[in-house]
Amino acid sequence: MSNQEAVLFANDAFYAAFAERDIEAMARVWSQNNPISCTHPGWQTLEGHEEVMESWTAILSNPESPLIVCRARRAAIYGDMAIVTCVEEISTQSNEHEFLAATNVFVRSGRVWTMVHHQAGPVHVDPNVFEDDDEDQPQAIN
Amino acid sequence: MSNQEAVLFANDAFYAAFAERDIEAMARVWSQNNPISCTHPGWQTLEGHEEVMESWTAILSNPESPLIVCRARRAAIYGDMAIVTCVEEISTQSNEHEFLAATNVFVRSGRVWTMVHHQAGPVHVDPNVFEDDDEDQPQAIN
Repeated sequence: MSNQEAVLFANDAFYAAFAERDIEAMARVWSQNNPISCTHPGWQTLEGHEEVMESWTAILSNPESPLIVCRARRAAIYGDMAIVTCVEEISTQSNEHEFLAATNVFVRSGRVWTMVHHQAGPVHVDPNVFEDDDEDQPQAIN
Repeated sequence: MSNQEAVLFANDAFYAAFAERDIEAMARVWSQNNPISCTHPGWQTLEGHEEVMESWTAILSNPESPLIVCRARRAAIYGDMAIVTCVEEISTQSNEHEFLAATNVFVRSGRVWTMVHHQAGPVHVDPNVFEDDDEDQPQAIN
């Protein structure tokens, strides 16, 4: 598995944990040995494992949390660190669709990439752009 | 100068170029030798030097662009990469204040840190929290 594939695998694990409301899987996504931070939409940046994991516990245990799908993911590798940018498609209970632009930063330890930072914020997207989107064909930026 | 000081110096150079509408200084802030990306508030992520610098040229040459001050900056160092999170205080021409949460990612080449990614998105902040803010006392997260 290339670095590119491995970091996108880690990014997919983040969105799988989010979609499945799996707090233990979400905890495994995040780095245990590095400073971490997280900027949820509209929130001030949270820092450290306690604050960040408390926020995820609150979000994932809320039955009204929206559904989420990761679109248009792109990874850039910088040695032992990587940035994945993507669009999060959010579907509310009333089936309204909203989009967030996301930055996910990962660090590598051996073969394993873990998240050290996440930010998502609202973005204007024409929903039709994703009609031909193939989620299995992420693009690298170089 | 420690890594911590050097990356905050680079972060300050980004906001100085932004505040002074200096497109040449802004170009020097960004890495020339690495993939770069930039997520302006409400925009989809821009990728590569051409797209990113075109966006900054448009923003910095617009006389109605708001004033900007960087608050509550915090740096986390990961080897040759660093993440600075901060709050951007935006003052519009009509003296309204808005806040953005920002992620700035830098890479190190020798002693010089250059930006590879920027994202900013709206955040709810009580303006009074910054009354006692000392911009010369950034805090490290560990």
